[in-house]
Amino acid sequence: MDNIKYTLSESQMPTAWYNIQADLPSPMPPVLHPGTGKPITATDLESLFPTTLIEQEVSQERWIEIPDEVLSIYRQWRPTPLYRARRLEKALDTPAKIYYKYEGVSPGGSHKPNTAIPQAYYNKKAGVKRLTTETGAGQWGSSLALAGAFFDVEVVVYMVKVSYYQKPYRRALMEAFGARVVASPSDETEAGRRVLQEHPDSTGSLGIAIGEAVEIAAQDEKTKYALGSVLNHVLLHQTIIGQEALAQLEQAGDYPDIIVGCTGGGSNFAGIAFPFMEAKLRGERENLKFIAVEPAACPTLTKGKYAYDYGDTAHLTPLVKMHTLGSSFVPQGFHAGGLRYHGMAPLLSHIVELGIIETRAETQLGCFAAGLKFARAEGIIPAPEANHAVKAAIDEALRCKEEGVSKTILFNLCGHGHFDMQAYIDYQAGSLHDTEYSSDEIAMALSGLPIIN
Amino acid sequence: MDNIKYTLSESQMPTAWYNIQADLPSPMPPVLHPGTGKPITATDLESLFPTTLIEQEVSQERWIEIPDEVLSIYRQWRPTPLYRARRLEKALDTPAKIYYKYEGVSPGGSHKPNTAIPQAYYNKKAGVKRLTTETGAGQWGSSLALAGAFFDVEVVVYMVKVSYYQKPYRRALMEAFGARVVASPSDETEAGRRVLQEHPDSTGSLGIAIGEAVEIAAQDEKTKYALGSVLNHVLLHQTIIGQEALAQLEQAGDYPDIIVGCTGGGSNFAGIAFPFMEAKLRGERENLKFIAVEPAACPTLTKGKYAYDYGDTAHLTPLVKMHTLGSSFVPQGFHAGGLRYHGMAPLLSHIVELGIIETRAETQLGCFAAGLKFARAEGIIPAPEANHAVKAAIDEALRCKEEGVSKTILFNLCGHGHFDMQAYIDYQAGSLHDTEYSSDEIAMALSGLPIIN
Repeated sequence: MDNIKYTLSESQMPTAWYNIQADLPSPMPPVLHPGTGKPITATDLESLFPTTLIEQEVSQERWIEIPDEVLSIYRQWRPTPLYRARRLEKALDTPAKIYYKYEGVSPGGSHKPNTAIPQAYYNKKAGVKRLTTETGAGQWGSSLALAGAFFDVEVVVYMVKVSYYQKPYRRALMEAFGARVVASPSDETEAGRRVLQEHPDSTGSLGIAIGEAVEIAAQDEKTKYALGSVLNHVLLHQTIIGQEALAQLEQAGDYPDIIVGCTGGGSNFAGIAFPFMEAKLRGERENLKFIAVEPAACPTLTKGKYAYDYGDTAHLTPLVKMHTLGSSFVPQGFHAGGLRYHGMAPLLSHIVELGIIETRAETQLGCFAAGLKFARAEGIIPAPEANHAVKAAIDEALRCKEEGVSKTILFNLCGHGHFDMQAYIDYQAGSLHDTEYSSDEIAMALSGLPIIN
Repeated sequence: MDNIKYTLSESQMPTAWYNIQADLPSPMPPVLHPGTGKPITATDLESLFPTTLIEQEVSQERWIEIPDEVLSIYRQWRPTPLYRARRLEKALDTPAKIYYKYEGVSPGGSHKPNTAIPQAYYNKKAGVKRLTTETGAGQWGSSLALAGAFFDVEVVVYMVKVSYYQKPYRRALMEAFGARVVASPSDETEAGRRVLQEHPDSTGSLGIAIGEAVEIAAQDEKTKYALGSVLNHVLLHQTIIGQEALAQLEQAGDYPDIIVGCTGGGSNFAGIAFPFMEAKLRGERENLKFIAVEPAACPTLTKGKYAYDYGDTAHLTPLVKMHTLGSSFVPQGFHAGGLRYHGMAPLLSHIVELGIIETRAETQLGCFAAGLKFARAEGIIPAPEANHAVKAAIDEALRCKEEGVSKTILFNLCGHGHFDMQAYIDYQAGSLHDTEYSSDEIAMALSGLPIIN
């Protein structure tokens, strides 16, 4: 009754990313220029991204080939294992079958290198010398640092200040890979200085850090910007997760009834879900259920508004239509730094609006309890972000037990928690608390949204 | 020119451990009873270990079958990858070929679960309810905690006090898996209290912690003791590493000229080396070179004496003939807690005496420099212990460059450094120092060795 690991040979590894845009019943709303409010053109984005990535951002092609240079690095840790969690099933005494895809085996410890590697590759190929980015928990920053080291591209990471001080070991990891890490808001940028002037004690936010990274990238031709989630091309690169899981479940002779992922910017959820969603968009697998789980302390999908908004606090990014709490929203402190973004991937938001995805918010105490239960059964300590997916997967399995039905649940365990042990210490010491927002607080945050005709 | 990963299918995974005792030209010296000084019997060990493990300890059979229940858990992360480190070769500009076996993919993050799982399994089968053990850096403690969670056996870990406070995250990991962790020396045992009486500020040592764990195990029939290195059966369980590497190198069409591993108690070195040593003991592969690398701050093999000594400070364990610095030796502080043991595996010591293994001591500054070079090329941050192997592998590769010869180097990257980032921070901040011992200091430590006729 032990777990079963499903692997794939390297030759079975997918060689193209799946672009769900090709299969959507309606196109995404246009991205608008922050100055003119008009749809942006590829040229508008060229100061931030290399052409290849801009093309991927807007492509309507179903399959986008993965370059050999990227595949050869993916192969260092991919295909990642898919586990049938029989030990967890037994611990829950559930008739449900639980599978999880484990992305924590990557050198960055999460799914983030899936996009960091191609982003660094395309930038290197375009002659870029330096990449700027932001990071919250540090999973993304360390993955881009790693990718920069592999392709010999300098990396500067604006790290949300609260994480910079709370997570010195994540910072050390980025520095070990050779990146420069700056606490954000910083006085290195106009965007940072403006925040510091108004709020000298600001602990930062992803929106602020994005503004800083974008500002620096826009100033220098050889410097571009890299984002770890939210954008279409980032979600695209993550689809290798779900494609592998499809092949692995075929090996297991199984197919999911329920697919679960946590959502911060949306990329790991998209990665596991989109390749399965293809069938649903074609009208097959009608009962296949998708659950996006977000933190109650940053409830973008469950309490935000589907509206045009800026990606950053400084309003330097284009306007995108997404579920958002407003670009000035600073979530209260909680231990899932990767899920603290005020917005959501526009592509994922669009699909949520199509009614294909169920959304759910979970408090951190419930998530840590689920994470510890998982750790003792499975021997892997999940990242606090991943615990949101663990929580919902366990809840679905327990519902199966109550209802006496056996469903097949698949979730994405997007990363390990080796750099998040302080959170587990705090949880076990009883010093973590849950925060939820009143509807007034949410309404207040949303009142700052830009008005777009 | 990217790295190449060599995997094995699960069906190619070894199903028996290799027992090098079957192939030794002379038998190991007997283990002596600490009270009588006479060779011990199996019965003498029964208060500490289940019969199956005692049998493995003394077995002269070449192959010992791995139980299905252990194999099925090994398969969660095994076979582990073997990498051809072409990126590191390029960074060093060496004609050498460098391969490394990566044990950091295990749930404990090191090679330690290879023995923790079978030890917990055999104890569970023998009706044991509780296991006591010691841990330095915490790699072993967290692996046994994990194995205890899998087999529903309670685990109590005596953690060397300096590590207990320096490494709260390792401790948190053990606690997350459900183990109880006690700072050693503690007042829970006679052995601990005796040390505290004499040295109230003692920061502990592996020798002290072993004494505490052994004392508790000996008192209660349902409690046994588990050791993470040193003993024959522990080294035996690790041989799956080298067996896999043999098969993977065959896949690569290659064979090593030099095999490198770091040595604390000796188990990860034995794991990678013994399966290759078989050929050498048969008179084949005469030029195959083995290098055991230890820290200059705990130079057991290079400055210790091959003599009978106790495994612990309290002198509760049997007397074994090994390379030792004396059981009261407390190494100065350095960041490779797994390599701070005063002795060395008797089996490995015996083979060193046969002249088959070259030994080498490295200082920690050199090891961290090597580790960072490795991390930037390979994207994996090694454990400080593993950096000793990295250092020697790099040195050998650079010697190849100097001499203009292409040799094939294989080393064991026995664990990742995710829980050791403070050491990297200290190193990069320039606040680490090297310590070496004068011959007087070593002579003084050795003067306490027991006198055995």
